[in-house]
Amino acid sequence: MTTQYYTATSLDGYLADAENSLDWLLQFGDGSGDAYEQFIADVGAVVMGSTTYEWILNQQVLEDPDHPTAWVYLQPTWVFSSREQRVVEGADIRFVRGDVAAVHADMAAVAVGKNIWIVGGGDLAGQFHDRGLLDELIIWVAPVTLGSGAPLLPRSIVTPPMTLTSVSMEGPFAQLRYAV
Amino acid sequence: MTTQYYTATSLDGYLADAENSLDWLLQFGDGSGDAYEQFIADVGAVVMGSTTYEWILNQQVLEDPDHPTAWVYLQPTWVFSSREQRVVEGADIRFVRGDVAAVHADMAAVAVGKNIWIVGGGDLAGQFHDRGLLDELIIWVAPVTLGSGAPLLPRSIVTPPMTLTSVSMEGPFAQLRYAV
Repeated sequence: MTTQYYTATSLDGYLADAENSLDWLLQFGDGSGDAYEQFIADVGAVVMGSTTYEWILNQQVLEDPDHPTAWVYLQPTWVFSSREQRVVEGADIRFVRGDVAAVHADMAAVAVGKNIWIVGGGDLAGQFHDRGLLDELIIWVAPVTLGSGAPLLPRSIVTPPMTLTSVSMEGPFAQLRYAV
Repeated sequence: MTTQYYTATSLDGYLADAENSLDWLLQFGDGSGDAYEQFIADVGAVVMGSTTYEWILNQQVLEDPDHPTAWVYLQPTWVFSSREQRVVEGADIRFVRGDVAAVHADMAAVAVGKNIWIVGGGDLAGQFHDRGLLDELIIWVAPVTLGSGAPLLPRSIVTPPMTLTSVSMEGPFAQLRYAV
């Protein structure tokens, strides 16, 4: 069981631009494809922050409000939120708050040997790192710079550094993998 | 003749940490090696901002103030600075200010077919990009995050995006090359 932060970023380290938009990323497609299918097949539980949840809810599930689509993950999903959130019919979504370590233990129990995916945002990934619970980064670096926006991982991880385990070119993206 | 921005960055897009230190980078060595030798062999002119100049001056040339070493580049070097700067004996260093396009023309005349290297910082590279004079990025991504610091390239370069031309693993670094 590995706890993974799998995300796309701009070359200058932003997950979303200053208007919280992903248009800079979506110009390259929707993130599906063989690499994603291989990754998600080994994921047993998903966790995200409220901004990420609201983005998926509003931009994907409710893109056509009269015809909402199904929740985007088959895996049980934990959402850290201090706000009341709209729920998605038929989805296993659990709203939580507080210490990530307790939630991580619940997720591990449900994932039963499969991986835990931290979808975002950066500070949530940082909270898992703070508790020593972040094992791997899988970063898709898009060929753009944004200059400002939501930070990839707002932490100092210097001593010891991470370990680069693979690099590859995936169409317009560089995919970098790190062991933390 | 290609105008290149060749630099190291943290994974989250910082050239230096919030204290303007490179200790996070220097833990991996001093940046010399075959890849650097191949790169610098094709460089005919070098340009940098005042913060970069002062860092090289104080941390390298004057590391032992009683025994200053030679300037670090054999190529003619342009330094953008609005401050009065200490000069280095025996070095071809030209202090300039104002529009980068005029300086770029002078550099191209001196480089005579060889490349122009923008050493840093990020805003200076951005100024070259603003004038359509930045051709290539060669980015060494260190396996660290800093959380804050001096930005790699504080610009929005989204439409059109850059083109990733190569990726490679160079020891602990991922080297990413982009055509702008």
